[in-house]
Amino acid sequence: MSMDAPSVIRTKRDRGELTDAQIDWVIDAYTRGEVADEQMSALAMAILLNGMNLREISRWTDAMIRSGVRMDFSALGVPTSDKHSTGGVGDKITLPLAPLVAACGAAVPQLSGRGLGHTGGTLDKLESIPGWRALLSNDEMMTVLRDAGAVICAAGDGLAPADKKLYALRDVTGTVEAIPLIASSIMSKKIAEGTGALVLDVKVGSGAFMKNLADAQELARTMVGLGTNAGVNTVALLTDMSTPLGLTAGNALEVRESVEVLAGGGPADVVELTIALAREMLAAAGVQGKDPADALRDGSAMDHWRRMITAQGGDVDAPLPVAREQHVITASASGVLTQLDAYAVGVCAWRLGAGRARKEDPVQAGAGVEMHAKPGDTVTAGQPLLTLHTDTPERYDYAIEALTGGIGISPAGTAFTPNPIVLDRIA
Amino acid sequence: MSMDAPSVIRTKRDRGELTDAQIDWVIDAYTRGEVADEQMSALAMAILLNGMNLREISRWTDAMIRSGVRMDFSALGVPTSDKHSTGGVGDKITLPLAPLVAACGAAVPQLSGRGLGHTGGTLDKLESIPGWRALLSNDEMMTVLRDAGAVICAAGDGLAPADKKLYALRDVTGTVEAIPLIASSIMSKKIAEGTGALVLDVKVGSGAFMKNLADAQELARTMVGLGTNAGVNTVALLTDMSTPLGLTAGNALEVRESVEVLAGGGPADVVELTIALAREMLAAAGVQGKDPADALRDGSAMDHWRRMITAQGGDVDAPLPVAREQHVITASASGVLTQLDAYAVGVCAWRLGAGRARKEDPVQAGAGVEMHAKPGDTVTAGQPLLTLHTDTPERYDYAIEALTGGIGISPAGTAFTPNPIVLDRIA
Repeated sequence: MSMDAPSVIRTKRDRGELTDAQIDWVIDAYTRGEVADEQMSALAMAILLNGMNLREISRWTDAMIRSGVRMDFSALGVPTSDKHSTGGVGDKITLPLAPLVAACGAAVPQLSGRGLGHTGGTLDKLESIPGWRALLSNDEMMTVLRDAGAVICAAGDGLAPADKKLYALRDVTGTVEAIPLIASSIMSKKIAEGTGALVLDVKVGSGAFMKNLADAQELARTMVGLGTNAGVNTVALLTDMSTPLGLTAGNALEVRESVEVLAGGGPADVVELTIALAREMLAAAGVQGKDPADALRDGSAMDHWRRMITAQGGDVDAPLPVAREQHVITASASGVLTQLDAYAVGVCAWRLGAGRARKEDPVQAGAGVEMHAKPGDTVTAGQPLLTLHTDTPERYDYAIEALTGGIGISPAGTAFTPNPIVLDRIA
Repeated sequence: MSMDAPSVIRTKRDRGELTDAQIDWVIDAYTRGEVADEQMSALAMAILLNGMNLREISRWTDAMIRSGVRMDFSALGVPTSDKHSTGGVGDKITLPLAPLVAACGAAVPQLSGRGLGHTGGTLDKLESIPGWRALLSNDEMMTVLRDAGAVICAAGDGLAPADKKLYALRDVTGTVEAIPLIASSIMSKKIAEGTGALVLDVKVGSGAFMKNLADAQELARTMVGLGTNAGVNTVALLTDMSTPLGLTAGNALEVRESVEVLAGGGPADVVELTIALAREMLAAAGVQGKDPADALRDGSAMDHWRRMITAQGGDVDAPLPVAREQHVITASASGVLTQLDAYAVGVCAWRLGAGRARKEDPVQAGAGVEMHAKPGDTVTAGQPLLTLHTDTPERYDYAIEALTGGIGISPAGTAFTPNPIVLDRIA
């Protein structure tokens, strides 16, 4: 069958449904380089603005899985369980969560990604640990998984290569925020990865791709449907992303905070969400009898963390990178901090150098935002509210501009109840 | 001010207005290669689907003009006037029109293009004249303009280079059909060219880019607004393109027909439209006192044609190239010819070799379609309706297939009124 990219693009541009043959062709031709980046980005924008129905999304996901190999961890003899977050600000949960679940008896084969837009990427964070390597062969991945019970690494070139190419492209072309593309990207990797169970952390709020609960529920239902149809036991939690998770947004800054959680400390919201997700992952994998809260207290989660990082070349005892410059933002008034907007902080951290504008750009390991108060806290005029970290201080003005309208302080005594962390559950 | 492509794309994706600074930055950065093709194509799709207002289109046009040089013909001491057609089938009007307007006292500095898709290109047509050169230096262009009063040549690389890049990108990314991008592409070239007055021939119908009058009116109003704001006295005629202009579609075939018009003959529709556009061009340039119809009759238009072609190396007395093979299509029934579809004839001529599939392909000078009847004419079964000309007769079947459904003959006595040539005028 003869096809050409402009005619596929025009179909979606003109609000038509893509046929199975069009979807199969465009994914395959894009993987082979016959469809060019500038053609795929125009199609992605048309999909973002005009949508896809569930049949198109399922076929798109399936075509991306078929663009590469599928992995199989049945030889491990242990139930496997994985988690995926749709991306937020300060969302370092994977770092303490994977070793924690491993410590409780399920294997966690996590293929992770890099930062997309204003949200951070797990691999970018872990790469701030001196020596740590994101790229593993399949054999190395299996070895780390056997030794440490968990592995976090980049998806190899063979796994959903179409998604790999498309994900990097979307990041630089303003086409990240499309439910059909988000759902198919996540699920093609997770299904091809071969995990037996999957817990989705679907973020909701200003710092998430889904700004409201209804959109997040639609995304969650779409993904749970795709996973279940593919034989993966899939559950979704919808969780709050109106304010950053924890007190840091940035690569090395978040590693430091994750280690605090594994040491039994850390910010309450990070601990709460880590434990909630660990319980879901263990239940979905059918593993019973161990409470994740205990594994944080007794050091077994930390032990798995050290084994996992070391097995991938990381030096767990080396000092983490620090940015060359710091700048403190103080509270403009006294009262109750009622707003610390996740999107504003995420864009600020991104502009400081924690994220990338183009896919080939490096990230700064030390850059980001450190928070000294969270919504609900009482603050005093002039006290430090945020510390900005960067190697490129010439971008301070641009980064600080992102905070405009993102910080709210109300008169002392204002009643304020922070959002619950977990907003909904879809199974 | 620091900018990045994803944020500019997101602004338009989310139905925002682009600021002047965003537009200036993105056009400049794209010209320099800092904004990548895949980013510009995503932005083009967002513009196509979400639109731009007149302020945005004006700024976009202006930024494309500023990406290169502007020409200036004020040293001529004569009013300048140009015409641009949005493209049609058999649309050779520029060929007789430019020398005709020159003969009436306005100088015509026309930068013209090549055919792409099913529509012909003025430069391709003129290149069928032995020796004629489309590429002139600015000095040569000025000399021809002084000597012959008119010049038709290719735009140099320095003129609106941003448009040149963007035009090629849109062609392969399904983003051609966006009124803001069409209007700014045409007007950036015409304003940079430095003409004092401009008449737009906006084609409407199956063989045109705009299939209906409302879209064509919107495009015409947008372009007239852009020209007027830039100090170019701009008028648009909306003209019929439901059937080809004249009796030929092809390169040398159309040159021959143009010379017939300059000799005082030629098909009535070509003569009518040439004179209508000449009157508009002279009025827009403020030139009075000479009737273009007289200049066709008294030989002065032909005299300017001969000087113009000769000054660009063309041999006006040499025989024009003829295709190696001809094939006659006869009328299948007797009656009234009620349909001779412009798009069908355009694609047929293109497949015979008159056009190109990719911009680096050559065209056949002699290939094309000669028509022996026009809508409204009475025809007899078996009489010649079309003669197909080509150097590659192996493509006859493919070319004839394009005519399917494009020719209609109704019973004798059927009432049929052809469309008027000029449908509307926007000033």
